[in-house]
Amino acid sequence: MKKINVGLLGFGTVGTGTFKTLQMNKEHMKKCADVDIEITKILVNNTTKNRGVDLETGVLTSNVDDIINNPDIDIVVEVLGGIEPASTYMLQALNNGKHVVTANKAAAAENFAILNETAKKNDVMIKFEACVGGGIPVLHTLTSVLQANQFTEILGILNGTSNYILTQMTDNGLAYDDVLKDAQEKGFAEADPTADVEGIDIANKLSILMALAFSEYVHPNNIPTKGISEITLAEIEEAKAEGYIIKCIASAKKTDKGLEYEVKPMKLKKDHPLAGVSNEFNAVFVTGNAVDELMFYGKGAGSLPTGSAVMGDILEIARNI
Amino acid sequence: MKKINVGLLGFGTVGTGTFKTLQMNKEHMKKCADVDIEITKILVNNTTKNRGVDLETGVLTSNVDDIINNPDIDIVVEVLGGIEPASTYMLQALNNGKHVVTANKAAAAENFAILNETAKKNDVMIKFEACVGGGIPVLHTLTSVLQANQFTEILGILNGTSNYILTQMTDNGLAYDDVLKDAQEKGFAEADPTADVEGIDIANKLSILMALAFSEYVHPNNIPTKGISEITLAEIEEAKAEGYIIKCIASAKKTDKGLEYEVKPMKLKKDHPLAGVSNEFNAVFVTGNAVDELMFYGKGAGSLPTGSAVMGDILEIARNI
Repeated sequence: MKKINVGLLGFGTVGTGTFKTLQMNKEHMKKCADVDIEITKILVNNTTKNRGVDLETGVLTSNVDDIINNPDIDIVVEVLGGIEPASTYMLQALNNGKHVVTANKAAAAENFAILNETAKKNDVMIKFEACVGGGIPVLHTLTSVLQANQFTEILGILNGTSNYILTQMTDNGLAYDDVLKDAQEKGFAEADPTADVEGIDIANKLSILMALAFSEYVHPNNIPTKGISEITLAEIEEAKAEGYIIKCIASAKKTDKGLEYEVKPMKLKKDHPLAGVSNEFNAVFVTGNAVDELMFYGKGAGSLPTGSAVMGDILEIARNI
Repeated sequence: MKKINVGLLGFGTVGTGTFKTLQMNKEHMKKCADVDIEITKILVNNTTKNRGVDLETGVLTSNVDDIINNPDIDIVVEVLGGIEPASTYMLQALNNGKHVVTANKAAAAENFAILNETAKKNDVMIKFEACVGGGIPVLHTLTSVLQANQFTEILGILNGTSNYILTQMTDNGLAYDDVLKDAQEKGFAEADPTADVEGIDIANKLSILMALAFSEYVHPNNIPTKGISEITLAEIEEAKAEGYIIKCIASAKKTDKGLEYEVKPMKLKKDHPLAGVSNEFNAVFVTGNAVDELMFYGKGAGSLPTGSAVMGDILEIARNI
């Protein structure tokens, strides 16, 4: 049986989700995929803090070199968040001949080109599934079996916080500020919600999605982006009366003029499959020239769903090593 | 660039869809996957009939040996339908060292065990994506990246004809017989609709889905199966009044007693993601122990969507040859 050693850079929400997914399903993956995956090192700031998981002595380290320069580690998983030092660490790992899995959409969207070139140069793999749509296996599918298609359009609901706010405004007639405040109190909206409600997080995800689905990388700053912070209850009610639901949509469309893309609140007909995607759920609606319309739906965030996506990428790399 | 020769057994709806998908996307697949796929032989009854596609001389043959005993063919695609002679041809092809792709759910469900054993014995691959959910890439996803999960439950809407009939009864208050007759006249229900409306087609698909997702093969005859032919408008209206939608569901659930499975019309809450899957669309709703709830939605039948699934399997085999 193939034995694969993994090092985690970071042990926050996604890092612990990845660790727990492996704990729950290690034997299952051995049986199904004939690979024995082990997380042998985890980079943290504080190696003595109790994290509520069983760890062998020596697994936690505060020295990044114990992972990216460790000859025993095959795959480096970057779940630090933020563009730096995450990007530098990933490049170093790739240059050291390690495969990389990342859940960090900001770093991946910012440095997509150099990360991929560096992986190619070193003949290793880099994978991004957990960056887009949390647990939904959309990137893998678009870049494997669905390459028998050329995509004409992709529409995504890619941010759980903004979709939760819009859903609560639409279904319960609540005002934007009230829903946001409630979501912050419950801990599933950030204290500074800018990246979520202004569409920045969505633009990062759309950048990665387009690069993989259309082989066309666009820096997120060059994606026209409008979030949901100016949406009023009156607009939502008016749309509803006309048979529409307002959703914040990431869109990319092949036209005669090339690829057109943007992030903005859009009115969808009530019977559009994306119109029923509520609260924290994400979905990606794809049109291919053979398969026609497809939708992938699931949890766009959360420790275990995102951990599932990271572990799925690890498994795919392990199969192909 | 890898050059892969494919032989088609059959050139009906799915066969022509496969051919057209390749025609449309051959160059795209060369670029994305670095494989040059060619359909070099097609088994038909009548080699002189005009089929509305451009074929080079010598591609059509009425002799199955030109494909399953042809040393130049790498992958045999079985789109004949029916259990025999399709199953025998697939076994012969596997024993001749050829990879096999099939869209034939009746043959695959009947002979799943022997087909897989024969593939394993000959160290070749056999793939079934087009058997379940038409164009929706559900089998590939469940057996690759999602193996980082153990599935606890799978619910599917897997037959377009029965879902179309139920949708028309539910949305437009039409009687069962009237919708069926209308669908038959429009050509998207069979003259003999038994396999569709009595759940037989769905049981075949559930058998394949369970074998791949739970590694547990159950012969379709051993799946408790009830179709939609006895559903009345009154039952549908009553369910609606209580906030439910009736859908014909294939279900498989891990319980303390093992895997439980059945095909039958079920009442789903109106806000269940499967409740919004209308008319000819199919969907598979999966719960995994890490990823939580996922849904895959798309066209469950049709020439090009099913051709997309067949070509996706060919592409995956081509990558791994």
